[in-house]
Amino acid sequence: MRLTESVLHHESKIATITLNNPSKRNALSKSVLESLALDLHEIARDQNIHVVILKAHGPVFSSGHDLREIISSPSEEVLSLFQTCGSVMTVMREIPQIVIAEVQGIATAAGCQLVAASDLAVASTDARFATPGVKIGLFCSTPAVHLTRNVGRKKAAEMLFTGEFISATEALEHGLVNRLADPDTLHSSTYELAQTIAQYSLSTLSAGKRFLYQQYNMTDEQALSFATQVISLQSTTPDAKEGISAFLEKRPPQWR
Amino acid sequence: MRLTESVLHHESKIATITLNNPSKRNALSKSVLESLALDLHEIARDQNIHVVILKAHGPVFSSGHDLREIISSPSEEVLSLFQTCGSVMTVMREIPQIVIAEVQGIATAAGCQLVAASDLAVASTDARFATPGVKIGLFCSTPAVHLTRNVGRKKAAEMLFTGEFISATEALEHGLVNRLADPDTLHSSTYELAQTIAQYSLSTLSAGKRFLYQQYNMTDEQALSFATQVISLQSTTPDAKEGISAFLEKRPPQWR
Amino acid sequence: MRLTESVLHHESKIATITLNNPSKRNALSKSVLESLALDLHEIARDQNIHVVILKAHGPVFSSGHDLREIISSPSEEVLSLFQTCGSVMTVMREIPQIVIAEVQGIATAAGCQLVAASDLAVASTDARFATPGVKIGLFCSTPAVHLTRNVGRKKAAEMLFTGEFISATEALEHGLVNRLADPDTLHSSTYELAQTIAQYSLSTLSAGKRFLYQQYNMTDEQALSFATQVISLQSTTPDAKEGISAFLEKRPPQWR
Repeated sequence: MRLTESVLHHESKIATITLNNPSKRNALSKSVLESLALDLHEIARDQNIHVVILKAHGPVFSSGHDLREIISSPSEEVLSLFQTCGSVMTVMREIPQIVIAEVQGIATAAGCQLVAASDLAVASTDARFATPGVKIGLFCSTPAVHLTRNVGRKKAAEMLFTGEFISATEALEHGLVNRLADPDTLHSSTYELAQTIAQYSLSTLSAGKRFLYQQYNMTDEQALSFATQVISLQSTTPDAKEGISAFLEKRPPQWR
Repeated sequence: MRLTESVLHHESKIATITLNNPSKRNALSKSVLESLALDLHEIARDQNIHVVILKAHGPVFSSGHDLREIISSPSEEVLSLFQTCGSVMTVMREIPQIVIAEVQGIATAAGCQLVAASDLAVASTDARFATPGVKIGLFCSTPAVHLTRNVGRKKAAEMLFTGEFISATEALEHGLVNRLADPDTLHSSTYELAQTIAQYSLSTLSAGKRFLYQQYNMTDEQALSFATQVISLQSTTPDAKEGISAFLEKRPPQWR
Repeated sequence: MRLTESVLHHESKIATITLNNPSKRNALSKSVLESLALDLHEIARDQNIHVVILKAHGPVFSSGHDLREIISSPSEEVLSLFQTCGSVMTVMREIPQIVIAEVQGIATAAGCQLVAASDLAVASTDARFATPGVKIGLFCSTPAVHLTRNVGRKKAAEMLFTGEFISATEALEHGLVNRLADPDTLHSSTYELAQTIAQYSLSTLSAGKRFLYQQYNMTDEQALSFATQVISLQSTTPDAKEGISAFLEKRPPQWR
């Protein structure tokens, strides 16, 4: 049995990666992280996939790192573990596809970070989220990076300093997830969102995703100048010419 | 007929600019953008105007760029078009007056960017907002710059990657607009907001507006040091001395 | 009578600082600010205190600066006053303890800044918040720095350009405060939040707090690399080893 399962549906242009170690609460052990990285790299090379759904088996989406692995490893291996985790988050951002987290249960620590690091997230109404590292003397510093880029300062501080759960409704209100769905319609809701995006040109989506995250770290003026160049260049691409023509001719576009 | 109409009410200290090309869905063609820039530059020079309301005629606030203009122009003219659009957004930020968007209908792409780039926005309860460029192969990169500086990351990604509309209520909840009003009270609500601001000193408003946007691109420490200098210097100005004295003497202030 | 009262409860690991000049609406005069700085510095040195509650006596939490002091002082003393205020805000951020504002009434200008600059905030349902400097010709530039790091751009602009109050409910919705409580349960609610945090290791809390604010001014990539080093190093500390062991052994941790 693989620790993660990756399935590519070329017809729908949607891949799913499923965390598949429910008896260990889908802990992000080094072997799970390496399996996840392999799946993401495989998808990245496949131009027929436009969207990735990241989901999990069992009652827990992911409980974060495996504490037994951390406590029993020498410090250089712990560093290597966190570096591997960081590189998974970075790959999620660097692949051309749009990543949607489908959160069916509890997402804590690096599990909550996975949700925050995804481009989009759909959660079950009974999902819950926490960054509880403070309770065990290991502040959720790496999850904080992605959490604070989704959620306002006061709420992020509350989650990080109390370690307490927030509900799915709070996660929605504070911007950690995009949509809620009943547990039994969670996958169909997520899939519907994925299908909407999957119909668009991968070259448009991937250029948009790259630009979107690059400009967050720019001043307003830099970002606007950069965007002006990006959109002008994109307007010369075959997919933009086809998209605009199709729109003006009231017909569906045919992407390259 | 002008493509934009600009009216200056010196008594109320409020100017209105109205997009006036409803049959073209108030598309931001180069000629509309140039007309808008002229209006803004005229207002900028007029110290008797404190607030600008940016509104539109017809069922559409603005549908963004004119796609026929983009598809039919050589790439250097397309770049020039997007540069003109960017310079309008920049002028809105650089004029001393406070800019309020009054959104009576659909605002998409660069039309949605106009709302996001305004200092404040009031929307009709039936207004709708979208950044649908992804649907035509032309990702809304320039709108994304202003959208992401108003709205959280997950919601912005959803709007940009799905291209779908959000309602006025969602726009309010996610911070894209300040207030909603029924369609028939939209202008009076916006005007009331404008009147509140217009009674204050233009020198205070313009210094505040300049500082506000400058400090967004600073670290917390830089911003606090900068603000300390700015407020100390402002405390020596005639309008601050008059404002404080009037407050302590329980009388209305007389700005210079 | 002291202008601020500071009480350290070593048993609960919670200190309270109370603004105690209700007849002056707890204005942040230079002497109040100096008293507040002394209290904070005393607490910073006390490793037995984990959380600070910042509260106030009377119907007003704090009305901000003392306008009579500003209008009657030469400009170099006004600069010194604002520098003292800025240094109090900076000390609140630099002390190892977590700071919770308990807002029982009106918080305006630098009083509103105190709330925004706190790590967390609990407000009475009848509290109200404003940055009204624009009304007296003295734009709330220093409050704007902390306000805009809690609240979205459009709402912050509305508060700063209109000077009008927002309700406690709006403050909650826009992220200026964490929780609301009825006036008669405000202190017990705040204390309960403080107790949750006070049970954790001070070394974990203080390292977490330092990291949290440092990373806000970094790019995503810098922040993730920094966090990876911070969490890996923290995993080697006695409190992390004890915290993880206690969790795995299902017993309460004993911090150093």
